[in-house]
Amino acid sequence: MSASFDLANLVVVLVRTRNPLNIGAAARAMTNFGASRLRLVNPYSVAFREAHSAVGASELLKKSEEFTTVAEAVSDCELVVGTTAARNRILQHPLHRLDHQSGAMVQKHLRAGRVAILFGSEKIGLTNEDFSHCHALLHIPTRADHVSMNLGQAVAVCLYELARDTAAEDSGQIPELAAAAVNEEITTALVEALDRSGYIKPGGEAACQKKARRMVLRLQLAAEDAKVFLGMVRQIVWRLRQSGKD
Amino acid sequence: MSASFDLANLVVVLVRTRNPLNIGAAARAMTNFGASRLRLVNPYSVAFREAHSAVGASELLKKSEEFTTVAEAVSDCELVVGTTAARNRILQHPLHRLDHQSGAMVQKHLRAGRVAILFGSEKIGLTNEDFSHCHALLHIPTRADHVSMNLGQAVAVCLYELARDTAAEDSGQIPELAAAAVNEEITTALVEALDRSGYIKPGGEAACQKKARRMVLRLQLAAEDAKVFLGMVRQIVWRLRQSGKD
Repeated sequence: MSASFDLANLVVVLVRTRNPLNIGAAARAMTNFGASRLRLVNPYSVAFREAHSAVGASELLKKSEEFTTVAEAVSDCELVVGTTAARNRILQHPLHRLDHQSGAMVQKHLRAGRVAILFGSEKIGLTNEDFSHCHALLHIPTRADHVSMNLGQAVAVCLYELARDTAAEDSGQIPELAAAAVNEEITTALVEALDRSGYIKPGGEAACQKKARRMVLRLQLAAEDAKVFLGMVRQIVWRLRQSGKD
Repeated sequence: MSASFDLANLVVVLVRTRNPLNIGAAARAMTNFGASRLRLVNPYSVAFREAHSAVGASELLKKSEEFTTVAEAVSDCELVVGTTAARNRILQHPLHRLDHQSGAMVQKHLRAGRVAILFGSEKIGLTNEDFSHCHALLHIPTRADHVSMNLGQAVAVCLYELARDTAAEDSGQIPELAAAAVNEEITTALVEALDRSGYIKPGGEAACQKKARRMVLRLQLAAEDAKVFLGMVRQIVWRLRQSGKD
């Protein structure tokens, strides 16, 4: 399937994270979505050590860097984006909802240089001091009465949006449909099966054929399915013919 | 900020989940994004009980329902969507990438009736048997070499996409689809007809049932067509039973 947006220039910054599981979860989501720069600002040191054992993310965690201030953690980044559950609070910053548009905005900066995305601690999130290092803020559009997301899940959702391949938001494959002639063969066989089963009232043949044909067409059978279905109905017809001979 | 898409009709089905933290995480993401129907198929019972204590999600978990089979868990749903990390594997189903477009497709169905989204166990995901109950499959576009996401994060990402406010986009009219229970009745009748017609090789019953179920689901029968089709197949079965008595 098509490639996602390259998050090599994204720096994920976890600020004062307490729970080692959340550090591990953030690292795992980064691995899933192709981000590899993890920075921690004042993590609880026990949490940080324990997180090293997270499944499948150890390489990323081993390369992670520790800082004592947000300023140092984001010093080489061109754009710094803070995440927050707040949405109505008066903030000193442009507040964007995480969506297509804000995602594209971040991607624009990622093409040019490094972008930091900050996630605050589980209890209180980012502080006003942390926000003061941000160019913009993002919130995930959750329900107004349940805004607070689990940290690992918030990281996953943000990375999913940022890694979105906006160039090729496509479709998944659409299967090849059956040719009209095959649908007609199915219709014919189905009508014979119905006729031999007593489904069709005397004089109702023509109406039943139209009804069956319309139904078969509405099924929009994939070519492969049509072949299988035709085989099934023909086998049933064969059996009904046999029993008609008795 | 503007409202999100209403997920009241979404049913989140966790199949054979082992880790109580993941059940709790799924419930929390559901609360964040406004989905409230949680169903569990064969969860490890310890996991299920422990999950009740998850912070902020207890109401949702208390209302969650437990089932022993996928069929029962999705019986009232019009559309059943399985999630998978696979992307190149040959599957019997349309495989969609989670994105704007597939999200809009699911939303369309959510406007008409219930939609189930299935998540498999942490170790092996969903099985082929589980997939046979699905109309379509979704995968989250992760990096090809790190496809496997944490369960709670996968749920969060899917719900984020499904709750996306696509109000601007146009929907089009779609017919009400048949409930899963009706599709299952059709499958059962069809398999009996095939069996009585000699279509099924000895020992092939289980495989044929899965094959038939997958095909019936792929047809995405409208409720009205399903009723007609069930009537047709049942009439054929009746006739075949009669001839079997000869």
